[in-house]
Amino acid sequence: MPPLNFPLARLADEVARLRASTPLVHILTNEVVQEISANVLLAAGAAPAMIVAEAEVADFAAMAGAVLINVGTLYPARYAAMRAAVLAANAAGVPWVLDPVAVGVLAYRREACRELLQLRPAAIRGNASEILTLAGMGSGGRGVDSTDAAEQALPAAMALARQTGAVVAVTGAVDYITDGEQAWATPWGDALMTRVVGTGCALSALVAAFCAGAPNRLDAVAAACAMAGLAGEQAMAASQGPGSFKAAWLDALYQLAPTHLTGQSA
Amino acid sequence: MPPLNFPLARLADEVARLRASTPLVHILTNEVVQEISANVLLAAGAAPAMIVAEAEVADFAAMAGAVLINVGTLYPARYAAMRAAVLAANAAGVPWVLDPVAVGVLAYRREACRELLQLRPAAIRGNASEILTLAGMGSGGRGVDSTDAAEQALPAAMALARQTGAVVAVTGAVDYITDGEQAWATPWGDALMTRVVGTGCALSALVAAFCAGAPNRLDAVAAACAMAGLAGEQAMAASQGPGSFKAAWLDALYQLAPTHLTGQSA
Amino acid sequence: MPPLNFPLARLADEVARLRASTPLVHILTNEVVQEISANVLLAAGAAPAMIVAEAEVADFAAMAGAVLINVGTLYPARYAAMRAAVLAANAAGVPWVLDPVAVGVLAYRREACRELLQLRPAAIRGNASEILTLAGMGSGGRGVDSTDAAEQALPAAMALARQTGAVVAVTGAVDYITDGEQAWATPWGDALMTRVVGTGCALSALVAAFCAGAPNRLDAVAAACAMAGLAGEQAMAASQGPGSFKAAWLDALYQLAPTHLTGQSA
Repeated sequence: MPPLNFPLARLADEVARLRASTPLVHILTNEVVQEISANVLLAAGAAPAMIVAEAEVADFAAMAGAVLINVGTLYPARYAAMRAAVLAANAAGVPWVLDPVAVGVLAYRREACRELLQLRPAAIRGNASEILTLAGMGSGGRGVDSTDAAEQALPAAMALARQTGAVVAVTGAVDYITDGEQAWATPWGDALMTRVVGTGCALSALVAAFCAGAPNRLDAVAAACAMAGLAGEQAMAASQGPGSFKAAWLDALYQLAPTHLTGQSA
Repeated sequence: MPPLNFPLARLADEVARLRASTPLVHILTNEVVQEISANVLLAAGAAPAMIVAEAEVADFAAMAGAVLINVGTLYPARYAAMRAAVLAANAAGVPWVLDPVAVGVLAYRREACRELLQLRPAAIRGNASEILTLAGMGSGGRGVDSTDAAEQALPAAMALARQTGAVVAVTGAVDYITDGEQAWATPWGDALMTRVVGTGCALSALVAAFCAGAPNRLDAVAAACAMAGLAGEQAMAASQGPGSFKAAWLDALYQLAPTHLTGQSA
Repeated sequence: MPPLNFPLARLADEVARLRASTPLVHILTNEVVQEISANVLLAAGAAPAMIVAEAEVADFAAMAGAVLINVGTLYPARYAAMRAAVLAANAAGVPWVLDPVAVGVLAYRREACRELLQLRPAAIRGNASEILTLAGMGSGGRGVDSTDAAEQALPAAMALARQTGAVVAVTGAVDYITDGEQAWATPWGDALMTRVVGTGCALSALVAAFCAGAPNRLDAVAAACAMAGLAGEQAMAASQGPGSFKAAWLDALYQLAPTHLTGQSA
């Protein structure tokens, strides 16, 4: 039986929780998507901060509500800062999220992601090729794109969740979110989102924001996927292409209200 | 008696001066806001350039009209480049501006900002928590956000201006700009600006642009705050949220004309 | 006799070729323009990836369809990665493109560009001052802007093409594209493009995308210039300033279809 869609009533609760707490999210991400990641969190209702110096990351991660680690433009000095942030987050009980960009394509980041997996992320968000690679079930991907469909990676996502203790989101036309036992589907979104750089990376930042103080981590990660996708569908109506889509998506994330969701049928 | 609003007739003069000179502004800022900072200067009428190599910054700072130093994502190599740029700017008589992002939160950048303050910035632009920290009047902030209101930091801003010789802008719902003796208020803007990353950092870049060749540095800094805020108010009319706001803000900065201002009542 | 305009029928063929192959483009560019460069390629129909670690660039360049090298924010570690990427691209027969930002202004990047020229770029895209400098015909520029007109640099562009074997595009109000023997003009575009940071740098990324697998490199480079310029003209109709222009430009790059072009008169 395929996973059920994440209920909009639960999404409404999660969005209300996020807006009430405006969690501080420590973002260590790639060079390309820093602005859109920050803007997605600000629009949704969280408080992003990019702190990158090895001298500062441990102090800051410990005071954050959650930490995001994205290996898209990894290099040694930034990787050292990421490790220091993760160790401090773990010591302080702060959840951290891994986005393993293109992990199947290049050996240096594959080794880095294997080390990071040992440090027990609270959640992992990737495309099918990335999740299959992390689960040791192979494949590669092409550049930063998946060459596999998300539904084919659901068994790998469940295995990876059981191996690591993380909630795993494998995203694509439909997203699947699993803790290794249960799973949700979030079928919302639009293919135009793949024509705007950073929509996936920014979703990982949103996953981190929802993980901050989350009573139910599976619901928190599903809420991030659902919010991003539903806002994407709303943005399509106001878009003539990827340029206007990006602005409309941020507007829709900002406007998306719990009351809209509970008045809406799934 | 609270400070008077910066007169729109003076803003018109300052905008005309900026547009006539299109100053070259050397920007050394954080990783997140480089694009919006450049786009704000291009829209307003200045010429931004990001030059970051230690081998290049001194030569370039000396030929620029002004230099911006923003410590948002400080790390040692970039800090070394910033110091070299500031020393070269000072030697060449080029004004430089300090944006002390989150200086109250983290020790490494606090030490860096203390060193930079010794190098006599022409202007400092920060939120209330940042200005209170620099003035030694405490507080911290939360992430990159202020936990204090701008009006409460005006005495600290005046003290900091007297200590350092800089014009100090403490920005918030109302901005206050002071040289330690006189002060202006710029009450324009909209809270939605806090939902777009880099509006404050880009304002600091605009402060640097107005400081280039400025006959009256207090007016120059106030003009940057007023121009950013008035454009923000105009952008609200064309916005459905933070995504469309950002584009509309750049449009409004580009369209804002001295003749509009002098035909408008304060 | 001045160069003829690049024929729209050839542009239609080149756009169809790009869309059919969605080439993977390895982008090593400056810190300011990474997002717009990626978004231009995604909108136009290519697949960008930013990979920057010295441990990863050689492997990735060898599997890419083309590589872009842009020296806008050059520093030693990034320059080492660029050299490694270029050497691997050359060994694998992958074309690479040079964008010599501000080469006339600063000695460090001038030396770097001289070294890179020895490594035989497939194409070079610069403004008039940059092309004049590379050709050893002097000038400097102001910051990242040209102080010379593109038409004055056409003889230098032809000489540079003959010296290096690269197709050279010198861009401005009218762009000229030459292999040292033949030349095309692409007269489309709008001055507002100079008020949006990264339109030129993103054009260089698009040049790289068209160079991937190109049967005719002169036409490929001209197609990139023509596509960017025509989309710019279409975007003007939907723009109130540089903020709305940027979104409209990406939309127009996405919407621009070979059938539109062949139904249109030059």
